[in-house]
Amino acid sequence: MAKDSGADATAEGPPSPTSEAKTPRTERGRRTLRTILDAAAAEFGEKGFHEGSISGITTRAGVALGSFYTYFDSKDEVFRALVRDMSGQVRDHVAPRVRDAVDGIDAERLGLESFLEFVRRHKEIYRIIDEAEFVDQASYRDHYAGAVDRIRTRLAAGAARGEIRADAGEVHAWAIMGMNVFLGLRYGVWQEDLAPSEVAAAANDILRRGLAP
Amino acid sequence: MAKDSGADATAEGPPSPTSEAKTPRTERGRRTLRTILDAAAAEFGEKGFHEGSISGITTRAGVALGSFYTYFDSKDEVFRALVRDMSGQVRDHVAPRVRDAVDGIDAERLGLESFLEFVRRHKEIYRIIDEAEFVDQASYRDHYAGAVDRIRTRLAAGAARGEIRADAGEVHAWAIMGMNVFLGLRYGVWQEDLAPSEVAAAANDILRRGLAP
Repeated sequence: MAKDSGADATAEGPPSPTSEAKTPRTERGRRTLRTILDAAAAEFGEKGFHEGSISGITTRAGVALGSFYTYFDSKDEVFRALVRDMSGQVRDHVAPRVRDAVDGIDAERLGLESFLEFVRRHKEIYRIIDEAEFVDQASYRDHYAGAVDRIRTRLAAGAARGEIRADAGEVHAWAIMGMNVFLGLRYGVWQEDLAPSEVAAAANDILRRGLAP
Repeated sequence: MAKDSGADATAEGPPSPTSEAKTPRTERGRRTLRTILDAAAAEFGEKGFHEGSISGITTRAGVALGSFYTYFDSKDEVFRALVRDMSGQVRDHVAPRVRDAVDGIDAERLGLESFLEFVRRHKEIYRIIDEAEFVDQASYRDHYAGAVDRIRTRLAAGAARGEIRADAGEVHAWAIMGMNVFLGLRYGVWQEDLAPSEVAAAANDILRRGLAP
């Protein structure tokens, strides 16, 4: 069972999206930071990085400019924090669903299904992550490297339980992530003509046989 | 055999990257247009769309500004033409290799292997296609829709020959394209630590069993 496999590396909780010095220390501060990050997602998702502005973010968030600068020094810094935050949101949305899997292959089905559901509610994630390729290449790479690491960890746990072929490794993890990203683009962002469960079942059927021991 | 399946829809040749009125009518004109498009790939690949310029393109190409305007009206237009041209280059690079496949699944192996080889020689393709998402969404969608169509056609041909499961369809094609795009990013653009043939063989092994009838 995937449940007690430790397959998802989320137990340690999300890293703070801001630098150490600016981590909010109160519940109220954490709520303000959350509001600013959500406003940044809306601002950059709608206008893109170059057209988006700090004042656009604070207006959407309903906070004073000073509150923004309590947490971030610049537009670049809030954008980087937003990419890390979105990576963390995907991970935290997917992880509890994956724990319900009946086996290692089923974990990938639930991972894709819950990712598709997340994407439909946060369509701006594609624009933001994709723009990171141009605005901050390191954030872009970290986002995908982190996702691949989580898939590799799940595959290794499934292989250790004899549910997945023993040679499943990095290439397989990148292949699975690529499937998920483009199925998310097509069936999450562009058109919702199939249910997430249908898309995930069809894709998982490839893996069910393709990754069998 | 994939060879006589008509599985790749390339026999009609690439569409002209420019609008009808501006298609070169002489061999010399075709060479000039090719030179301009290659220079545009270098310019936009290195500087991005916003920093890239028409004068940067003509300097790289070693052609006069007037030659540029013989074929394109604007920076937007040459960028759109470049995206179409790169889609066509990928297709024309992959198609003859796929014809050597021993069956429908092997066609996907050769498709990925030749795509990885193409990417290593044209690393700028990722930046250009990805930037199209922001510069010209229609070109971006057309690029991926075209790639998916070619995969679907190959899967259908393989299914008709009894080599691929009969229900292989759109979801499977998007899954395969996503695999290819991200394996190309990781093993083509970012790092060349595995040979294209090794990456393609590992990924194809999933499909060999996963798409069997």
